[in-house]
Amino acid sequence: MPQTWATLAPDLYLELRGTRRRAGLEQALREAVRSGRLGAGTALPSSRALAQELGLARNTVADAYGQLIAEGWLSARQGSGTRVADRATPAEPAAGVSRPSSARRRSAYDLLPGTPDLASFPRSLWLGAARKALAAARNEEFGYQDPRGLLRLRERLAQYLARVRGVRTTAERIIVCSGFAQALHLLATTLNGQGARVFAVESYGIGLHRDIIRAAGVRTPPLAIDSSGAVIDQLRGLGAGAVLLTPGHQFPLGVSLTAQRRVAALEWARGSGGLVVEDDYDGEFRYDRPPLGALQSLAPDVVAYVGTASKSLAPGLSLAWLVAPSKLVDALVESKRSSGARTGVLEQLTMEEFIRSGAYDRHIRRSRLLYRQRRDLLVARLTERSPGVSVTGMAAGLHAVLALGSGLRGRDEPGIRTRAHRAGLAVQGLAEFRHDPDPEAPAALVVGYGTPPDHAFAGAVEALCDVLG
Amino acid sequence: MPQTWATLAPDLYLELRGTRRRAGLEQALREAVRSGRLGAGTALPSSRALAQELGLARNTVADAYGQLIAEGWLSARQGSGTRVADRATPAEPAAGVSRPSSARRRSAYDLLPGTPDLASFPRSLWLGAARKALAAARNEEFGYQDPRGLLRLRERLAQYLARVRGVRTTAERIIVCSGFAQALHLLATTLNGQGARVFAVESYGIGLHRDIIRAAGVRTPPLAIDSSGAVIDQLRGLGAGAVLLTPGHQFPLGVSLTAQRRVAALEWARGSGGLVVEDDYDGEFRYDRPPLGALQSLAPDVVAYVGTASKSLAPGLSLAWLVAPSKLVDALVESKRSSGARTGVLEQLTMEEFIRSGAYDRHIRRSRLLYRQRRDLLVARLTERSPGVSVTGMAAGLHAVLALGSGLRGRDEPGIRTRAHRAGLAVQGLAEFRHDPDPEAPAALVVGYGTPPDHAFAGAVEALCDVLG
Repeated sequence: MPQTWATLAPDLYLELRGTRRRAGLEQALREAVRSGRLGAGTALPSSRALAQELGLARNTVADAYGQLIAEGWLSARQGSGTRVADRATPAEPAAGVSRPSSARRRSAYDLLPGTPDLASFPRSLWLGAARKALAAARNEEFGYQDPRGLLRLRERLAQYLARVRGVRTTAERIIVCSGFAQALHLLATTLNGQGARVFAVESYGIGLHRDIIRAAGVRTPPLAIDSSGAVIDQLRGLGAGAVLLTPGHQFPLGVSLTAQRRVAALEWARGSGGLVVEDDYDGEFRYDRPPLGALQSLAPDVVAYVGTASKSLAPGLSLAWLVAPSKLVDALVESKRSSGARTGVLEQLTMEEFIRSGAYDRHIRRSRLLYRQRRDLLVARLTERSPGVSVTGMAAGLHAVLALGSGLRGRDEPGIRTRAHRAGLAVQGLAEFRHDPDPEAPAALVVGYGTPPDHAFAGAVEALCDVLG
Repeated sequence: MPQTWATLAPDLYLELRGTRRRAGLEQALREAVRSGRLGAGTALPSSRALAQELGLARNTVADAYGQLIAEGWLSARQGSGTRVADRATPAEPAAGVSRPSSARRRSAYDLLPGTPDLASFPRSLWLGAARKALAAARNEEFGYQDPRGLLRLRERLAQYLARVRGVRTTAERIIVCSGFAQALHLLATTLNGQGARVFAVESYGIGLHRDIIRAAGVRTPPLAIDSSGAVIDQLRGLGAGAVLLTPGHQFPLGVSLTAQRRVAALEWARGSGGLVVEDDYDGEFRYDRPPLGALQSLAPDVVAYVGTASKSLAPGLSLAWLVAPSKLVDALVESKRSSGARTGVLEQLTMEEFIRSGAYDRHIRRSRLLYRQRRDLLVARLTERSPGVSVTGMAAGLHAVLALGSGLRGRDEPGIRTRAHRAGLAVQGLAEFRHDPDPEAPAALVVGYGTPPDHAFAGAVEALCDVLG
């Protein structure tokens, strides 16, 4: 195995292994930073100087630097060259609404699903958009608003959703919400008000969503999930007024609803007068295929589409958008009015400006690259270090399901989680997302690779491999 | 009556009347601007030059300029001196949640109650606070949060409310809401969940509030209002689980709940296990007396206090705060969680910084002065031009009730409103706030003097006097 040694003035020493020179250089730099040998703020040689010293093409070095900057190991600032990044201490975590926050609080590495990388929230771009939005706002936009939200944002969203997700709507049918959960609450209370008492859900999903539907006085029978997505046939005979689906990327199992099943869902809705609720939580993030358009685009009259900025930007923005069939708009508006809930106009105006200026598209493209690299790294390291574990589901979104194999069952998950927590790693078992408990189901972890800050991600993956063996 | 005439190069001609020189100068400048003789952007002489020309003290002129700047007739920018302000065309109005928006839409002058002066929203101060807040935010503050809102804001509010309103609370008992309406929704659904089916209200109030309580499945029997406030005795025998009061400044009648009635309300709560809900919508705005402390300060265990930034800053911020008795906090948090509603963290962080820096206090002091002047002008002009009309209620808040006299009754109000609308004036009759219709009640208008932008206020008052005769 060829080796290259380099000693660079004043203090850069790298051990390069293997034949893949760029990968070897990246690995050497990572290890030097991880071990602490290269401290935060250490200046690196220019890519030209390092390339010369190592006998590599300059592009190879520049690409390696770029990769490590993307991963958060290095930082580059105009005029001050490339340096070792300031390594923030692991974030002191917030109380999650639907997540095991106590586990998170004690853990150095957070791989819980549901949250994007909060460290990459584009603070200065957002502030810039807020500045423009505040300057351009009309006085009356600071007053009481249409319960649906500011017209200006709804018009922008109608355009955006048509372009990016194929959603067919006008501003009139969009209701700005503070998250998917609020949209679901409005849908459940509205349907209950119209006499529906059954709201079918997928047999794997988020507990809070089931809680919200039930709090509105509506039952939530589950549909099984197979490799084609939710088993739509099981809607027969349930008397459901609605069904909640994640057709683009089942959460958490990660399958996509097939074309046949999509058609079946729409046929069910048309035949029964029921409503399909499409939770498009991560429709922007597809890594190995172009995204399918929203289910709503096939049947805007029977599908309520919900998108959100919680994954594409940050949950804290509290911005989501419900696109409702015409026949439901008035009742939904009345539900929202009766709930007294409103969304701040400054967030709305800023979001509108953020989309208008193209900053939102650019941020999503950047994030897509970032998460794809993380997913690739996760898969590569697991393949290498934990051959008994298989990653299931589409290359999409911010999470992966790791089937643990070795005859492990759902009942073994708590033990694995405890072991992980002792190793400083917050993870979640698949069983926590099941509608009904099944201790005999194969064990799996739901890993959120979006969550850690960049600089902690590689360490989190190694810690995970350590635990999974 | 002495007169002073002034002609100033190049084009400032003023006619000064009366002995009160500053008032005369202000009046002359106002008329020159109102008539259009001095167009938008016209440069005025320096206060020194004008004082010399008119034989006035320089301070007299500077004060008059200051007053007219505060009223929005003039504007001053560093380095470019004093100019006639750009006169925005009357605002194209927004759809109000609980207000007759179609009337507003057609009207040049908006005197509908419920909204502060949106033109004086401190945009650049708010943006400055947002900049600081964004820079200081921890990454995890962009994630999912405690349903009560950010701890940092709740701690700041606990301090602020103790200092300004005497409220006794800790951060743990504060729930950040998007407005009073949401707080009321959470209270009504929580109480309903605990078996309460009756939520007494004042016999005059906001229709939306009654709708929200009823939408939660709870009845709203009304308590009469007399000069001592709500008649608490009428709670006897109602079997109410709660009562909604505006003790500081009854909305809309404008009386304050007397000390005896306050004690009676707390005795009722202690004796029956009921809850007093205190809507402190305008507690910061008292003009002729120091504000009474919040009712909550007497009995934090039986009073739920609700304050809001909707009147002190702008409804569009969608920020309010519910301070709950300990025994209700968990159930309220669960109600909020089940409603899926959240408040954006950037608004919360910015509000925290706005209070911390003192900008909120300063804004309220400025607003108090502004609204007091408006109220004084309204009363003075009505006294002079419409002697049959009397202004009732405390000198407080953002609205006044005009008793129309002349034997006019509630049934005459629609006619008066129509006449006002023809004259380009949006006003609201008292009858619209009554819990139960009473066409024989004396006719009155509820006039929001906070609503118009400064430059339109004097014109709005004159138009109102024209209509009332």
